[in-house]
This record gives sequence, C-alpha cells and structure tokens, in this order.
Amino acid sequence: MLNVAIVGASGYTGLELLRILYAHPQVAVTCVTSERSAGKRIDEVFPTLRDRCSLVLENLEPVRVSQKADLIFTALPHKAAMAVMPTFMELGKTVIDLSADYRLSDAEVYGAWYEPHLNPELLKSAVYGLPEIRRESIRGKKLVANPGCYPTSITLGLAPLLKNGMIDLKSIIADSASGVTGAGRGAKVDSLYCEVNEGYKAYGVGGVHRHTPEIEQELSLLAGEKVTLTFTPHLVPMDRGILSTIYATPLKGVTTEELNELYRNFYAEEPFVRVLPLGSLPSTAFVRGSNFCDIAPVVDKRTGRVIVVSAIDNLMKGASGQAVQNMNIVCGFYESAGLSGLALFP
Amino acid sequence: MLNVAIVGASGYTGLELLRILYAHPQVAVTCVTSERSAGKRIDEVFPTLRDRCSLVLENLEPVRVSQKADLIFTALPHKAAMAVMPTFMELGKTVIDLSADYRLSDAEVYGAWYEPHLNPELLKSAVYGLPEIRRESIRGKKLVANPGCYPTSITLGLAPLLKNGMIDLKSIIADSASGVTGAGRGAKVDSLYCEVNEGYKAYGVGGVHRHTPEIEQELSLLAGEKVTLTFTPHLVPMDRGILSTIYATPLKGVTTEELNELYRNFYAEEPFVRVLPLGSLPSTAFVRGSNFCDIAPVVDKRTGRVIVVSAIDNLMKGASGQAVQNMNIVCGFYESAGLSGLALFP
Amino acid sequence: MLNVAIVGASGYTGLELLRILYAHPQVAVTCVTSERSAGKRIDEVFPTLRDRCSLVLENLEPVRVSQKADLIFTALPHKAAMAVMPTFMELGKTVIDLSADYRLSDAEVYGAWYEPHLNPELLKSAVYGLPEIRRESIRGKKLVANPGCYPTSITLGLAPLLKNGMIDLKSIIADSASGVTGAGRGAKVDSLYCEVNEGYKAYGVGGVHRHTPEIEQELSLLAGEKVTLTFTPHLVPMDRGILSTIYATPLKGVTTEELNELYRNFYAEEPFVRVLPLGSLPSTAFVRGSNFCDIAPVVDKRTGRVIVVSAIDNLMKGASGQAVQNMNIVCGFYESAGLSGLALFP
Amino acid sequence: MLNVAIVGASGYTGLELLRILYAHPQVAVTCVTSERSAGKRIDEVFPTLRDRCSLVLENLEPVRVSQKADLIFTALPHKAAMAVMPTFMELGKTVIDLSADYRLSDAEVYGAWYEPHLNPELLKSAVYGLPEIRRESIRGKKLVANPGCYPTSITLGLAPLLKNGMIDLKSIIADSASGVTGAGRGAKVDSLYCEVNEGYKAYGVGGVHRHTPEIEQELSLLAGEKVTLTFTPHLVPMDRGILSTIYATPLKGVTTEELNELYRNFYAEEPFVRVLPLGSLPSTAFVRGSNFCDIAPVVDKRTGRVIVVSAIDNLMKGASGQAVQNMNIVCGFYESAGLSGLALFP
Repeated sequence: MLNVAIVGASGYTGLELLRILYAHPQVAVTCVTSERSAGKRIDEVFPTLRDRCSLVLENLEPVRVSQKADLIFTALPHKAAMAVMPTFMELGKTVIDLSADYRLSDAEVYGAWYEPHLNPELLKSAVYGLPEIRRESIRGKKLVANPGCYPTSITLGLAPLLKNGMIDLKSIIADSASGVTGAGRGAKVDSLYCEVNEGYKAYGVGGVHRHTPEIEQELSLLAGEKVTLTFTPHLVPMDRGILSTIYATPLKGVTTEELNELYRNFYAEEPFVRVLPLGSLPSTAFVRGSNFCDIAPVVDKRTGRVIVVSAIDNLMKGASGQAVQNMNIVCGFYESAGLSGLALFP
Repeated sequence: MLNVAIVGASGYTGLELLRILYAHPQVAVTCVTSERSAGKRIDEVFPTLRDRCSLVLENLEPVRVSQKADLIFTALPHKAAMAVMPTFMELGKTVIDLSADYRLSDAEVYGAWYEPHLNPELLKSAVYGLPEIRRESIRGKKLVANPGCYPTSITLGLAPLLKNGMIDLKSIIADSASGVTGAGRGAKVDSLYCEVNEGYKAYGVGGVHRHTPEIEQELSLLAGEKVTLTFTPHLVPMDRGILSTIYATPLKGVTTEELNELYRNFYAEEPFVRVLPLGSLPSTAFVRGSNFCDIAPVVDKRTGRVIVVSAIDNLMKGASGQAVQNMNIVCGFYESAGLSGLALFP
Repeated sequence: MLNVAIVGASGYTGLELLRILYAHPQVAVTCVTSERSAGKRIDEVFPTLRDRCSLVLENLEPVRVSQKADLIFTALPHKAAMAVMPTFMELGKTVIDLSADYRLSDAEVYGAWYEPHLNPELLKSAVYGLPEIRRESIRGKKLVANPGCYPTSITLGLAPLLKNGMIDLKSIIADSASGVTGAGRGAKVDSLYCEVNEGYKAYGVGGVHRHTPEIEQELSLLAGEKVTLTFTPHLVPMDRGILSTIYATPLKGVTTEELNELYRNFYAEEPFVRVLPLGSLPSTAFVRGSNFCDIAPVVDKRTGRVIVVSAIDNLMKGASGQAVQNMNIVCGFYESAGLSGLALFP
Repeated sequence: MLNVAIVGASGYTGLELLRILYAHPQVAVTCVTSERSAGKRIDEVFPTLRDRCSLVLENLEPVRVSQKADLIFTALPHKAAMAVMPTFMELGKTVIDLSADYRLSDAEVYGAWYEPHLNPELLKSAVYGLPEIRRESIRGKKLVANPGCYPTSITLGLAPLLKNGMIDLKSIIADSASGVTGAGRGAKVDSLYCEVNEGYKAYGVGGVHRHTPEIEQELSLLAGEKVTLTFTPHLVPMDRGILSTIYATPLKGVTTEELNELYRNFYAEEPFVRVLPLGSLPSTAFVRGSNFCDIAPVVDKRTGRVIVVSAIDNLMKGASGQAVQNMNIVCGFYESAGLSGLALFP
C-alpha cells in the first residue's frame, strides 16, 4: 500500500480525492491537512465520510506530512503550494499538485498572471500532467502539475485538430461554462446559493481569466507555434461540470464525419476520452462523478467553422480524478485504478 | 379598456402574458384558448391565478375569439399560428404573434427552415416587432411578428456595432444559453426535471437551430448586407433567462471604453435596454421577471476581438414582455405600461 | 407621497422592500442604510435596480434617517433593531420592524430565547402585525412588529381551528420547510450554493428554533390558553418559499369538506389568503413573488388527524410583503397597494 | 460470475442497477429489457454508459430473459411485475422485485390500495427485503420484495423504538420529502423541470399515498400490534434523496442521549446504517449515490416528543442499492459488494 497525504483536504477537490482514494486498491490515506479546520475530524467537516474515514485534520507542516506519506496531493490555493513544495522535493516525495503553481513552464508568464514565482527552478522538473498528451513524460516524475479544469476540457477538445495542423491558429474561441464547485468552498457572498441559483453569467470576459496562459501554453505546444485565443468562462447553477464549446476556422474544408473519425482514431486507446457517435452531443450530466471527457466535433456547413464540444466533471477529470490518474501513471498502477466508476445520473 | 384574447394560454408564454396584463391599466383579458385544456378554468391550470382570473379556456375558434377581443396574442407553435391568422386579419383584428410564422420576410427561407408557408402574402403586412430597431414601423400595424428569444438577445447585442459598420461581418459567433422554459410546457422526457437538472449542454450545434435565419435576417438589415453567423444554443438548468456571448472581429482597433460609450448613446432613450457600467457584466438573474435587456461590450485586448454579453428573461423581453411592449406601441399606450416591474431577485 | 427609509437595505428583505415600494403609488424611498456596503450605490449591490434606483447606502444614524423619512422599515438582525428603536420612537417616527425584537410581548421570554431586551417598555406599544388576525389594532400604530416567516405560515394555517376551539392544543406539530433566502445574505459556508444544492435537511430539531416562542404566543392568543407545539424547520434547495404541514388532533370528528368551508368563511374577506378548492394543495411555486398565503386543510380519515398545509413566499407574506401590507394599514392606504402582483411562475 | 437480467432497464432504478452492477465483482449483466426503448442500445438511452455497456434493450419475454440470466431484477411498474413473476418462478429463477407487487403480505390490502392481485399465492413465498430487520429470512429466497423508498426510511427510523415498545403506537406521524427521481422517468407535465424547480409541495395528503399500508405493515410487525400512522410525502426540487422527519410520543420520559445510545446499539453491526453523533442531523446530500441510511433521534424537551430524522438516497438504499444488497444476501456474496462507494458530494 502506498501511503498518501492530502494537503488541503477541507476543500471540494480534497474531498473528491478522499472519495476516489477510498476505493483505490493500492493506496492508504494516512494524513490530511487543513488550515481552517485543523483539529477536527475529517468526517465532521464532510459527513459523507462518516464511518469510513476518521482522520484528524492537521496543520500543514511539510516535514511531518512527509514522514507520514510517500506521495502527496497538494490541493492548495496557488502560492500556498509553492511555499511548501521545496521541502517535499528535498525530502524526496512525489507530489501531484492541483494548484496552478507548476503548470506554466515560464516563470515570467506565471509572474505576469499570478505573482513572482518562489521557486522557478522547480518548474523544469515539473511535468504538466495531461495523460492523453504526454503520458510517457509523466511516468516516474516527482512533481506533476495537475492541469486546470478549463484547460483540460479545451486542450482535449482541440488536440486532434492542432496536432494535425488543421485550423487557423488565430481563429480559436473557447466559450466555456462551469458548475459552482469551481469557485471553491470559501465563504463568499458571490458563491451563496441565492446569488448563484437561477442565474447564468459570464465572468472574466476579455481574456483576463488566469487559465488563459495555461490554455495557450498547451495549445501552442500541440500546434508547434504560438497560439493566442479568446477564452470566456461562464457560471452555471449546478454543482459540477465544465462544458467547452470551441470555435475554429479550418484551413481547408472538412466534414463532421471526417472530424468524428479523426477524433475517434486520435483517442482510440484512451480510457477516459469518449468521442461521441455522430449526432450525439456531450452534457455535463453524463460525466458527473466520472473521469470521462466526452467530445463531439461538428462542422457548421453554412460558415465552414469547426465547433468542438467537450464535457468533463471539473472535480474529476478537471481536478481530483485526473490527479489520481497521474498518480497511477507515476507509480505504475493500473491507470484506471479507483477511477472506473460510472457517472451518477440523475 | 382594450379587450384582449390570448390564444394558446396554457403554455408558459401564455401565462406570462396573463401575469403582465393583469397589471396593465388599459387592458382586459376577455378570452383565453387552449387545445389541451379547453373547458378547464385557467386558474386550475395555473394556480398562480387563483382568486384573480377565472376565465374558462376555450377551443381555438378564430371567429369567436374575434368577437370577444380586438387585439389577439397568438402564443401558438409555428404552423398553428399561420393556420388562424387569415381569419383574424380578415376580421380586422390586431395580432401580436409570438410564433415564428411571420418573422421571416422571405417565404422561401421560412419554407427551408420550417415548412411551406400557408399565407405568404401576409408576410408583407407583418412587421418584425423589435421596438429598439423599428419602433416607428410598429405603430398602428395590424400584424406584429414578435421576435424570438435568442434573436432578441443577439440583435440588441450587435445593433450598435452593425449600424456603425464596425465589425467584420464574417466573424460573428453567437454562443447563447437558455433556461428551460424555452423548451415549452410539452410533456417530453428531455424536459423532465431529472434530465435537465445539474447538467449543461449544447444543442443544435452546427448552425441548425431554427432561430439562425431569423438572427441573420435582422443582422443583415442592420448591416446593410448579408450576414452569416455561427450560432450555438445551450441549455442551462434554470427556469428563465437567455444570455448571449457574442464574438466579432472589429474592422479597426477599439477599446472597451469606446464601445461602452457607443452603446450608451445608441440605447440612451430606450426604456428597456441597460448598458452596464464599465466593469459590470450581465446575469440572467438580474433581469428575471423584468423586461430589461442588459448589455456589456468588452474588448479582448490580447486578440483584439469584441465580446458582447447580453441578458434577457426569455419569457419577458424574449417573448411576452416584448409582446406587450409591441401592443403598447401599436395601440399608442405608454410603452412601459404593465412592464415597469423590477426583476425578482433572488 | 410618504417618505420612507429602509434600514438594512443590503439584505434580501431590504431588496424585496425596494422592489415592492418601487411600484407603490404613494411612497418614495428617500433613504437606505447598510453597514457592510455604506457608500456604495444600491444598484451596485443589487443590479436589478439599475436605471431605477440610485440611492447611496448610508451608515445607520437614526437621527439622520429620521430627518429623511416619516416611516422606517427596519430590516436588521435582532438586537440591532432594538438598539435604534428608541430614537425612532422619540422622534415620532412610524416603524415597521422586520426583526424579532418586538414580536414577543414578554421581555422574559425574549431574554430566554435571544438575550436581555434593551427597551422592554417599548414592547407594550408594539403591535404584532399579522393583519388577518389583528388588523384593527394595527391601524395608526407607531411600532409594528412584523411577524416571522414560519410563524406567519403556521398561525394563518391554524387560526380557524384555534378560534373555534376545534383541536387538542397538546397535539400540534408543525413541520415546515424554507427556501434559502431565509438564511440571509451573510457569507457563510453553510449557505454556499454547493452546500445547499441537491440536499434537503432538518435543522433546529427538538424545539430549539427561535421562532418557537413566537409561534406559541400567537397560537395561545388565538386559542385563549397556553399552547406548546413541536416545530421542526427544514431547508429546501430553492430561493424562496415556506410551506408548513401542520398536524393536530380534532376534539371531535370533522371532514375535509367541513374544514374547507370553515376556512373559506374565516378568510372570506382577506385579500391575501386563498383557501384552495377541495382536492388542491399549495406549493411554494404558486406564491413566489406574491403576497398570498395559500392554505388547504385536509382530514386523514384513517387516523382522524387534521392536516393543514400552508404556503407563502418567505420574502413577501413572510417578510417584506407583509411589512408593506402593515404600512398600508397603518397609513390608511389601500391595503393591497404595491402588493397586487401575481406570482412569477415558472 | 452470476448472470443477471434487468427487466425495465430504461427507468432511473434500472440505470442505477446498471451503475452499481458495473462495479460488482461477481456479476455480469447479460440482459436488459424495456418496452419503450426495445431495439435501442442501452448507452443510447443512457449516455453515462457509453464505452462501458452496449447491451441492446429487448422486449420483455420472460422465457427468453430466463434463458439469459439466473437472477432477475424486475424494475417495473406495479402490475407489470406480477404479470411476469409466475414464469420466472416456474423456471426457478431468483427475482429481486423493485415493484410494490409482493411487498404487502395480505392480498386484500394490496387489492384495496392497488388492484386485485394476479397471483396471491406467490405472496407467501416472497420475503420483504429490508436486511436490517430480517436478514436471515432473505438468505436463499427466490422472491425478494424490495421495499419502497419511503417505507425504508421510516421503518429504519422507528425500528429501535418499536422493537423496544417505547412509543404510543397511535402517535406516529411521518413527514417525508423526496427528490424528483421518485416520480420516475415518464413524460408528464407535472415532472417537467419548470413545474418542479423552485417549488416545494405536499402531495397525497390525508393518508392516501400507496406506501401507507406498506409502512404500517412493517411498523406493525416490529411493534407486535397494529400500527396506524399519518404519513405525508412532499416533493423537493432535487434529483435524489428522501428525508423523513418522524414524530412519536414516548411512553415514558427519555433523553436524546439515551435514544442515541439505543440506536447506536441497535444498528451497531449494520454496514449501511449510520446513527449520527449527538448534535448532528442527516441531510440527503450526505447520502447521495451511497447506500447509507443516516439517522438521528432527538427528544423535544418542551413537549416530550421523540423526533427521528432519517435520510437515504431513494435510488440507492430506497431502491437499487437495497436490491443489490438483497441479491448479495440471497446469493451469499459479501453484503457490501458493489455498494461500498461513498456519497458524491457536492
């Protein structure tokens, strides 16, 4: 059994890690930390865990955490993750980091969108953990930067087109929408039930959302040249899910049928990407609680544009599910271990 | 008092008309029809009306309806509206038609997207009832084609840009999302609570939604040349609301500040369009139950694109509210009569 | 025009007062206060008010408020209301108090459930503002204690039975459920969208909810002797609404038909109580946004128990709507002024 | 591997069975039937199953089903189940029946609440499958009547009190609320999103819900004498979950602490019943997607009443989860096989 710690366990991604790992055959969770709830039992914070997990939340002391676990999931806000990462690395731990701190390979870009990076030298040793794109680079790594939720849905949605050089790189628009868990578990008026319920809105309009440089980094790597896109996130009154509707202009004419086949081939071996049959479209409802990314590419015959729709559960393939998938790859476990559950519908 | 009939009163737009007209000082509803509920009292079908409206739903017999009312709202499915329209016209009635049947000025286009038009000669006498664009043409008209919900949000969102020739007409993408009332009150598995709740999905992807030609007709008129766009609707788990996020490439550089001023000037005299202050963005929650259209134009500095976000209540400014606004204009009433209510939030 | 102030205007009941009063023909809102948002324009806090109300929120200084208004709605937390009430009273203002501070006529009971009362002498001059029960006592009063939401639904539900001495006073159980606006607009984890959504729970189980003594006070007055009940509130994932399902044992056999007639007669003259026809049951959906209380009494033939179901909108008849109704009565306005809007459904 | 059929697989309980059994180590689903969708692939009907289950839905022909499977889950409406049961029995199959047809041991009672029973002789061989109450009787049975959702929550909530003869049997009131999956997947206006959303209502008020005799049968067996109760179901705008708030008068004084200990002891060995710690209360959100029943007994000190709150997921412990638990017991599998998943929260 691999001893595992969850640092930042009192948030939604922390709880989702606990839910997944409870069913994982090769893992034991031995340590959970939380600044806001240290001293409490985790099942007091999350009653879903009652009778199944009674670990006591601790303050985050990296050395002590390292004594209790060999692999650490850091489910912290950005900045908090990079504050503790050097200690984990020095002590030889393997870390799957769910924050944004090691996703951008260029410390200057990180500085421009977040703040000065505390340990830019670690960026080189980190791998961006999107298995479908760079599975081999993940194996055995000590520091995996787990991708953001929006970037996962958009990168998987565009990868076949970009890898095959099929679209005008200046034409990309990603219009995405997220459930409310994406806003985290902090006590803010904006996240109150009555503020969110029965409303739909855009936010971060105009290319100012912090996932933008992460998306562009990954799309650029796939395309082999710099990609700049327009990305607009929206908030949907539901708990979980991200759906991205992505627009691009193809370099030459293409049909929906051809795209569907291209996507099927591209993702043929992937356990968690489902290219939908012709005529079907994704819904976040059909991936809720599962690690799937459902994708459908469509051509708008009237304008010639390509439209790709992709859906994930933001807490699963968009965060904790992908983090466990990365752990499985890093550790040489069966890649789907703990992740084979079907979506909960309704 | 103007005697008014609501034909197709057992659907959501019919009920919304009743709610609005109940508070209208110059109108008396004298006749309501419904095929599925004929013989029932309207307050049995919609208990919100108890103690306030006890009209009995009748079968739709155009002559009898015409005897009871001088102005008729037709809240029928497409095709059903054009089946009864000639009678209403012959009898000299004024009709505000909430169906799609008289929105497209070209019968061939109607035929291509719906079915052969039954009375194409009436199309010439109909006016497309978007007051902000053609208020003067609406006054005194006998047949007003009340705009669709998506077209209203998109046309109002783009009008200032198109009227001023500011954008590349081939660059327009409208990504819209609607609450579930948009699907009507028919008993379909797809509209069941548990099918819709906690899910977000695109539908009609690839330019196949029937509102597409209507949107293009209106944008083309504003632009003075043919516009073809990509339009993607989505379904949001909420009762009411449409939000459109519209993308376009400006012909020359422009700032958010300049656009905001342009929009403020363009809509300065409009009672129901609110151009939001800089830094604010629309939400469907803030227009729910009201006749407002909230709009915010934003420039994405990194890509140069213009992004316009507009929000309406699909049952109000997207249907029944706009229909009453049209009635007010046609009849020379105060344009906001019955429509001055603020949004219900939360 | 009556000049009116809303003290505590940045909460949900404050906003609801603004929404109602905007449509009230005899009232002008001249002052709004908020501790958390002082200095902001009210339409920045509540975008539904844009273009319609641009008052600036002030700190609560009772003397200044009194200079600006003749009637004051205090929409404050308990304790905060009684801190400012003496000043308002000394200055001769009329106050409709939406807090709990003047609802309990016995200062000791208040002290036992809340904290020591700051000005118990004012309790005598206050009237408990449930118009259906004591309309005449409200007329002309200077201090109206606006009833709580749960107490309103339960008292109206039981009044006909208690007034007629028809039930065993030891048998009363009120099982109530509220939408989330009842929890207010404070930033608490427990009120976050993702904590509340898709869950239903009881709270305050065992007679510990603070509305209990208020309910018992009113039921006792109606019965003419002391009533003790079991009251259990629940939280429903919806914005608005309270539904109470109330159980009692009748002193002698009675039928649903007899009860229905009794209730119809009892409330025959009431503008805002609707006793439903036989076979119909209330839903919070049918009163949302309106000032109605819908009631249906039913007899369980198998056990002989009486079950009364009553539904209100907690922000309307359960708070701000009733407050305006009280203002109308106090001031001699038409009792339904500003309150005639039908429910917003869906 | 046990070959299993799901008869009536296109409803919500059918899908939930598929979701559970997909993760069950000793079971293979070899046959699925559906009248409304025969001929379709199950993953066309339920896209959550894509890439994981591609069985084709068949018409319900009992003999052919019996050739393909040794154990059959009948997830049919009442009456439809008893129409096919004799064939399954004659062919020696084991059936877990999720309908109401074999829950009532008295054919006359069934006839009074439903319709004449088609094969009353089979009632004797059926066992009511509530494992916590009669686990030993379930082992090896050929026909298990899987309990209803409301009866499960109420029976588990009251069992410790009834077994110990602690309450006045005439005092029981069960006030329950269910998510919308309880209404099934039929296309009805009443179950539309916009009809259900943002509303809370009681239904079947007055002891007329068909689960009433089932509840009374089980409570009577536990009490050792006839129990008649008042049961009121409510509908909550959420997908899953049942919460029952149950009231009873104890025969002698008792404290919350004593009850908590009594319940803990009573359910000490149960894998799926969690008696909550003192001060905690159940929420349907904390059991969603899991097979748990969470229970908290509380004493109302002011009235002396006992209040028990219990929560289940109606599709899991209230239907399909309990059905699999029964299969595990019947077949001698590990009782939690396939059922160990934690709740999905949020």
